[in-house]
Amino acid sequence: VRAEIVSVGTELLLGQIVDTNAAWLAERLAPLGIDLYWISQVGDNLGRLTEVFERALRRSDLTIVTGGLGPTEDDLTREAIAAVLGEQMTVVPELEADLRAFFARRGVPMPARNIKQATIIPSGRPLRNPIGTAPGWWVERDDHVIVAMPGVPHEMRRMWQEEVLPILRQRMGTAAIVSRTLKVLGPGESAVEEMLQHLLASPNPTVATYAKPDGVHVRVTAKGSSDDEARALVAAMEAEVRAALGHHIYGVDDETIAEVVSRLLLERDLTVATIEAASGGMLASVIAEAALSAQVYRGGLIVGASGLAPLGAAEFGARDGHDTTSAAAAALLARVARERFGADLGLAITGAPGPTASGETPPGTVHVAMAWHGEPHVNTQQHRTTPTEVRRRAAMAALNLVRRTLLESATRA
Amino acid sequence: VRAEIVSVGTELLLGQIVDTNAAWLAERLAPLGIDLYWISQVGDNLGRLTEVFERALRRSDLTIVTGGLGPTEDDLTREAIAAVLGEQMTVVPELEADLRAFFARRGVPMPARNIKQATIIPSGRPLRNPIGTAPGWWVERDDHVIVAMPGVPHEMRRMWQEEVLPILRQRMGTAAIVSRTLKVLGPGESAVEEMLQHLLASPNPTVATYAKPDGVHVRVTAKGSSDDEARALVAAMEAEVRAALGHHIYGVDDETIAEVVSRLLLERDLTVATIEAASGGMLASVIAEAALSAQVYRGGLIVGASGLAPLGAAEFGARDGHDTTSAAAAALLARVARERFGADLGLAITGAPGPTASGETPPGTVHVAMAWHGEPHVNTQQHRTTPTEVRRRAAMAALNLVRRTLLESATRA
Repeated sequence: VRAEIVSVGTELLLGQIVDTNAAWLAERLAPLGIDLYWISQVGDNLGRLTEVFERALRRSDLTIVTGGLGPTEDDLTREAIAAVLGEQMTVVPELEADLRAFFARRGVPMPARNIKQATIIPSGRPLRNPIGTAPGWWVERDDHVIVAMPGVPHEMRRMWQEEVLPILRQRMGTAAIVSRTLKVLGPGESAVEEMLQHLLASPNPTVATYAKPDGVHVRVTAKGSSDDEARALVAAMEAEVRAALGHHIYGVDDETIAEVVSRLLLERDLTVATIEAASGGMLASVIAEAALSAQVYRGGLIVGASGLAPLGAAEFGARDGHDTTSAAAAALLARVARERFGADLGLAITGAPGPTASGETPPGTVHVAMAWHGEPHVNTQQHRTTPTEVRRRAAMAALNLVRRTLLESATRA
Repeated sequence: VRAEIVSVGTELLLGQIVDTNAAWLAERLAPLGIDLYWISQVGDNLGRLTEVFERALRRSDLTIVTGGLGPTEDDLTREAIAAVLGEQMTVVPELEADLRAFFARRGVPMPARNIKQATIIPSGRPLRNPIGTAPGWWVERDDHVIVAMPGVPHEMRRMWQEEVLPILRQRMGTAAIVSRTLKVLGPGESAVEEMLQHLLASPNPTVATYAKPDGVHVRVTAKGSSDDEARALVAAMEAEVRAALGHHIYGVDDETIAEVVSRLLLERDLTVATIEAASGGMLASVIAEAALSAQVYRGGLIVGASGLAPLGAAEFGARDGHDTTSAAAAALLARVARERFGADLGLAITGAPGPTASGETPPGTVHVAMAWHGEPHVNTQQHRTTPTEVRRRAAMAALNLVRRTLLESATRA
């Protein structure tokens, strides 16, 4: 199946928004066995829209359109599809009732122009939009399919999952598709690909890697004649991926490293505190994103010019003759975090995220320390990227250090 | 001038990366008087690339291509342009020398396949790439222009500014184009548009608004017969925008709110400290991004389960019978920040960023407080968005509160 994506909206051509819908959809087509050959962005102009849809009908089996389904005169996706197919739009009473109910729930009258959101053409059928006013269209003529969805990302994503994906699966003869993402921290993408070399060519399940801000994602996707069969295929492949990557895998699907670490701490009735001398609150911010963290997080200090004085702790600063950016300083900070916040574990980050060196520490070098029992663990990292990215990676490394240490202590116990 | 953008790379069609280059370029074309009608993404495939370029030559005066200029067999942008024009690629000795020098500086030998990065066709001339191995192409045939630039965003942006923009300005008969972005915090985009209603239709300079993570950007762009003339036009319009928006404007172009606030503090020899009970380090992180902040930032506390105890400060927690998410709590935290970190100004954020309520505070409500002389100022905000976005907006509001207060005190003094 040859597919293309068309994103509609003049704001895309003015650079006011970035087309994230296309990338989101693109990522989901390959696992369905659908080959995506073209993506295009086009403005709210009937002539150009019609031209783009005509070409799509000629060259693609499946055209996925997002945007242009709003109620205004600028929203022309429906009109262009109808024009290309030479069909008439008519109001569907049930859609109109849905639409009026939507406005009634919000306590506002429905503007007259919204009625066009309740229309369909003879070759089409509506796709439900439970969270917005724009239903989608599934249009089919002569073995060509056009799917039109709203441009608002969360409406589009929900319509894709609930309405479009089930039909596409059936069409693709894949009764079931199951995907699972294994998330990796530690090795980089090329190292992960090397470790998975023997699996990357597998046709079913497929195994693909993606470099993301929270590590490397390994996506395993299987097709099967039933959900159970696809799930079993994924499980078997997951076992192989796990055999190859082992403890480098920190989580699955939507799990974050902060959630995983918070859960591990909670299970053991442990708490954590942070002191950041080089990451400026990045570590605390990442932890705060995990709902569970409220139960395990004792608090954190961002070290500024006042050093550790606000904690009533030892002097800490260049004036006192310390190299506050050294590995030894990281170990000290981790111990102070543990003691002053009354936490079981203390985490600390120091160093020189850049762009300039700090003291003797070259730019891009950060030390990540964890204090628990005995001497603190310290990891030193050297990155060649922006200071913000160095801070983010240091925060990820700090959480991964906790995860690895807790898992190892469990194995030993 | 009718323009289109073509972004080349199979990774775009697999959803592995989002095409931010197209949006960046799109934003820069309108001020040049260039109408962008199409954007498309296409994979590393000679047949499809050729088809896309043929169509572009037919329908557009200017085609801007990014990506596909690397040294590998998958990088086919040059080959496709040459094929469409029926021209031969030949090695340019000066480009080859540049390329070899680039590798020599890095102390590695040049791989043989890189030689294709030193080629050009008769209708083309090379565009310098001072920070990478892929020179661009400026190609011109029968009133059609194709500009090919690397896909790596920072290489593309520099080539655009230094090599492409000067030629385009000349072509467009605009000897000079000057842009200036005024950044606004406080009112939202629609409020800003309302305040600028009388200016938005101006043809030269143009005035356009963009909603961005750090507030609303108002971009003023003027064309003139000389740089001086364009600059004078921008200055006159800037005065009108400033008259309409006044103190809501916090900065210009690349200035960040954290830099602006750090500078204001430094000028007055003042320091600041933070306590975050609801923003989890977001405020500290935003401050840390400003290089100047190291000179004015005394430090910060992220409040976790240990409350304010690590600071040796008053008890603070639900157990102690306080509503730690109230406006009064924000004021208390701001005072404590000031005192315990020995700072002139104390900033604090508390409340319920969501998704659930905290105590009596409904989700999305945050209190931002600043302590300086006398009673702390407290701003209460109510947002309907994600918890992360609520935290970010609270951090922006806290810094904006400092800015406004310092400016007002200067006016009074």
